[in-house]
Amino acid sequence: MIRIELSIELNYQVDAMGADFIFNVHAARTPWQTVSHENLQVSQPVPLGHYTDPSSGNRYLRLRADPGNLTVSYQATVDVAHVFAEPDQIAEVPVQHLPPEVMVYLYPSRYCQSDRLIKLAIKEFGQMPQGYARVQAIRDWVSNRVTFTSNTTNSNTSAVDTLIEEVGVCRDFAHLMIALCRALSIPARFATGTDYGAPAVLGPPDFHAYVEVYLQGGWYIFDPSGTVVPMGLIRFSTGRDAADVAFATIFGGVMSQAPWIQTMALEDASNGILLPHPCSQALSTDGAVLPHAANR
Amino acid sequence: MIRIELSIELNYQVDAMGADFIFNVHAARTPWQTVSHENLQVSQPVPLGHYTDPSSGNRYLRLRADPGNLTVSYQATVDVAHVFAEPDQIAEVPVQHLPPEVMVYLYPSRYCQSDRLIKLAIKEFGQMPQGYARVQAIRDWVSNRVTFTSNTTNSNTSAVDTLIEEVGVCRDFAHLMIALCRALSIPARFATGTDYGAPAVLGPPDFHAYVEVYLQGGWYIFDPSGTVVPMGLIRFSTGRDAADVAFATIFGGVMSQAPWIQTMALEDASNGILLPHPCSQALSTDGAVLPHAANR
Amino acid sequence: MIRIELSIELNYQVDAMGADFIFNVHAARTPWQTVSHENLQVSQPVPLGHYTDPSSGNRYLRLRADPGNLTVSYQATVDVAHVFAEPDQIAEVPVQHLPPEVMVYLYPSRYCQSDRLIKLAIKEFGQMPQGYARVQAIRDWVSNRVTFTSNTTNSNTSAVDTLIEEVGVCRDFAHLMIALCRALSIPARFATGTDYGAPAVLGPPDFHAYVEVYLQGGWYIFDPSGTVVPMGLIRFSTGRDAADVAFATIFGGVMSQAPWIQTMALEDASNGILLPHPCSQALSTDGAVLPHAANR
Amino acid sequence: MIRIELSIELNYQVDAMGADFIFNVHAARTPWQTVSHENLQVSQPVPLGHYTDPSSGNRYLRLRADPGNLTVSYQATVDVAHVFAEPDQIAEVPVQHLPPEVMVYLYPSRYCQSDRLIKLAIKEFGQMPQGYARVQAIRDWVSNRVTFTSNTTNSNTSAVDTLIEEVGVCRDFAHLMIALCRALSIPARFATGTDYGAPAVLGPPDFHAYVEVYLQGGWYIFDPSGTVVPMGLIRFSTGRDAADVAFATIFGGVMSQAPWIQTMALEDASNGILLPHPCSQALSTDGAVLPHAANR
Repeated sequence: MIRIELSIELNYQVDAMGADFIFNVHAARTPWQTVSHENLQVSQPVPLGHYTDPSSGNRYLRLRADPGNLTVSYQATVDVAHVFAEPDQIAEVPVQHLPPEVMVYLYPSRYCQSDRLIKLAIKEFGQMPQGYARVQAIRDWVSNRVTFTSNTTNSNTSAVDTLIEEVGVCRDFAHLMIALCRALSIPARFATGTDYGAPAVLGPPDFHAYVEVYLQGGWYIFDPSGTVVPMGLIRFSTGRDAADVAFATIFGGVMSQAPWIQTMALEDASNGILLPHPCSQALSTDGAVLPHAANR
Repeated sequence: MIRIELSIELNYQVDAMGADFIFNVHAARTPWQTVSHENLQVSQPVPLGHYTDPSSGNRYLRLRADPGNLTVSYQATVDVAHVFAEPDQIAEVPVQHLPPEVMVYLYPSRYCQSDRLIKLAIKEFGQMPQGYARVQAIRDWVSNRVTFTSNTTNSNTSAVDTLIEEVGVCRDFAHLMIALCRALSIPARFATGTDYGAPAVLGPPDFHAYVEVYLQGGWYIFDPSGTVVPMGLIRFSTGRDAADVAFATIFGGVMSQAPWIQTMALEDASNGILLPHPCSQALSTDGAVLPHAANR
Repeated sequence: MIRIELSIELNYQVDAMGADFIFNVHAARTPWQTVSHENLQVSQPVPLGHYTDPSSGNRYLRLRADPGNLTVSYQATVDVAHVFAEPDQIAEVPVQHLPPEVMVYLYPSRYCQSDRLIKLAIKEFGQMPQGYARVQAIRDWVSNRVTFTSNTTNSNTSAVDTLIEEVGVCRDFAHLMIALCRALSIPARFATGTDYGAPAVLGPPDFHAYVEVYLQGGWYIFDPSGTVVPMGLIRFSTGRDAADVAFATIFGGVMSQAPWIQTMALEDASNGILLPHPCSQALSTDGAVLPHAANR
Repeated sequence: MIRIELSIELNYQVDAMGADFIFNVHAARTPWQTVSHENLQVSQPVPLGHYTDPSSGNRYLRLRADPGNLTVSYQATVDVAHVFAEPDQIAEVPVQHLPPEVMVYLYPSRYCQSDRLIKLAIKEFGQMPQGYARVQAIRDWVSNRVTFTSNTTNSNTSAVDTLIEEVGVCRDFAHLMIALCRALSIPARFATGTDYGAPAVLGPPDFHAYVEVYLQGGWYIFDPSGTVVPMGLIRFSTGRDAADVAFATIFGGVMSQAPWIQTMALEDASNGILLPHPCSQALSTDGAVLPHAANR
């Protein structure tokens, strides 16, 4: 098990009309991710709406802010009991056996035009044996092909653009990997967290986008950007792509400051709490446990 | 109330590998749409999986077909008790009051890149009074701007393309209207049915794509293509856009024939069953009834 | 006649491999644009290649720079004897009467996908009487529709993007206007100069992109961005779009600084040299003189 | 030398407004391509405008057709004296040594967005030794990656689309190869002719699009579609991409029939006239002769 102390502060200047915000910065609560302490502070005395989406588990905070400054700060201590599995024992799930609620992650979405990549995906990956290793090959292909470069892409950039231009940031890597998986009929979704373990050269701690792929046993974590230690990721939310899981969706005239984020991993070996570390096993924070896998 | 007898036949030739199908041709069951008789026949003796999505009510039929012919035929008698409302009494719902499960219909999707149309939408419609009439103005703008032309678009065509090239079929009209609504923070979704009332010049009866927009009281029906009598639409499914609600999603090597569709409206005035007809009132088949509206 | 004193300085840092440059910052020499004094300085003692394209009159400076600093400075005094014409007397030229060398400006190019805008252009402008006023209407439509906003577009942005997103800088306005003209079979080309008369709020003096349209009598100047005084534009070069007329095309690893530009208009009324000023007449710096127009 | 007898018939139905046509179906006259007999017939007694572009040598026929049928038929006997060269002796030409008139073929164009492919091109081909073999590697990469499939693309399809979707016809192969060459600063242009040697399975004889690349000694022929015998290609025209070299550009309301084309190669060994045949040497029909190459 790993334990992360998370602290986020978001600052906005709201114009004279006021503005609606939907925040998605609460750590998700799942059977494998436990939020032991949690504290939310909003600088304005406005009504707060909390909502948890029943299918994704995403937790939303909704508020209508008055003109002026708005600060939202959130702290949490989160324990993640990863499911570890042996990569070579994880099969893909044939379409006819996919749970119905997973089907939607086969379809193309705003930033993941999987329908256009079918021929390419089959040519590159169609001959490989099915299973976790094939998905890992997709991840590696994206990691090798795309160069992490700040300020090269914008909110309009999609998987097709990234395939052509071969530069991007974490969300672009994620979109391309997702599109390629879906093109092969492998369900894949977009996940958000914080960039635990990212090197300082990439900038201050930030939100992070990564990928979850549905294989035998549930959803597995992949980081195609290669910038973080996957075991240190805690999940805020999942969705089809970045359109679904912005950490802040804003309706109105608002000036935003860069978010301030801090994550710290705690160690308590006597209680089985380890620091996140690189690991050759497959990682899941969702879904049923494989018979041969051990919870650690 | 209107009553439609619906008959669909779908024919496929499946190659030697077999193929997975997900059909979405069952009439949805909602409080306002009642399926009184229903008959499904599948020509192959394969297991049939039925699934109803809890949030959308979409009904899916899933099967894995063997090589050879596959025929799926479906007949149903469907009663629709529309909610009628006075257009000038239907307000838009402010973002802070939208039900959480409706929020997703504000976000851009594969074929509805609302994020790129915000400036255009505000310029064209931002000064209008909010309400049903504004949405009707969006519908009229799309209807007037785009020309219905068969074989001008393909499965890759999106709202942005339709805005530029100004030609398309029903799904293209729907995508553009949806994108414009979302760009104004008005929830909109893609709906499928059959093209009741379409003139023969457009070809034999076919599946139809139209739009539902969330306003005060629930989801309202709009047909931006202007080719059908909206009152005669029965709903198969709703989704973010065409990526979600294909009448058949196929995984494998399959030759498809054009679908055969027949719809007939029944009249039984003594029981309040009328023929679908053009109507100046707002129509809904979903959501709560407005106080001032009458069920008919 | 107007007289501009122009001064440009370009600074680069060339990496260890050296780099090839093609500059296009010399004022064009045409029968209507006279370069009376001209001075070019290049900080490195490398061979300079000068080339004037026979069809466009564009003047290119080519050099291979060594590693280290490279400064190119250019000063010129340029006289422009505009052809003035009455807008309501300038007809469009029917396709069958276009000079062959003008035809290429009817075709779509990298940033001006006129082939996709034919329907839209005909709908918006097809019913107007042909002539200068129709082109002016296209210019006004673009000016009104697009908002000048720095840093919203990049070198990949094309007319189609600008039509959708409705923001951009001078080159984006120019591309959209050109695409619309070509969609109506009106030859249009991209021209570059400096932004004489631009308000300081847009930043320091800079290169400018504008449009020339072929009508009866020759090529006429239009500034769809509305940011400059057209009479103060001197022409560096013309081409199909921005792909042809970069002020510097660089092959190699180079760090560029922002260009330093200064333009000053001289006045000498006794010799007929006036300051550039807004003007309701049509302006041309190219092509034959209309019978009813006077050179001033 | 090879000798081709060419026969083309084009049929149109012009609507009541009449229409302007620009045809580009005359075999180009170059020092290496001789048109010994030529016959043009136009079914309407309208004035014919002939124009040869001085830089490309493209020959245009321009006419304004009256309402009704229009038939244009053209026959020619064309001799091509190819320049043959040894691939391993053909170098690329450094940018600083490119003739000025060739520079334009380095820039992106409507269908060849080379500016977006620089990173990909450098990754795939940047480490290879420069020269003919590298261009051949680009050709092979495109040939292997894209599948020739009729009716998968349209007049809007560009190199970027073909890279993503990996299907297309001859023009799509050509656009992608051109874009990749330009991304590496290798001049490349689009050429049109007829599809000599294409297998019947692709359909009746048709116009063909191929590529010319500028290397040491001049422009060399490449057929990325792999569907023809390159030695049997005669050149109609060259341009930046398909936007420049349509065999018929039409302004007005016109119904077109499929073109009828026939090509026959003649053999007269005693006079050195051979049948076109596959050949491992580099082929050029343009530019200076390499010292070590023999004319045959």
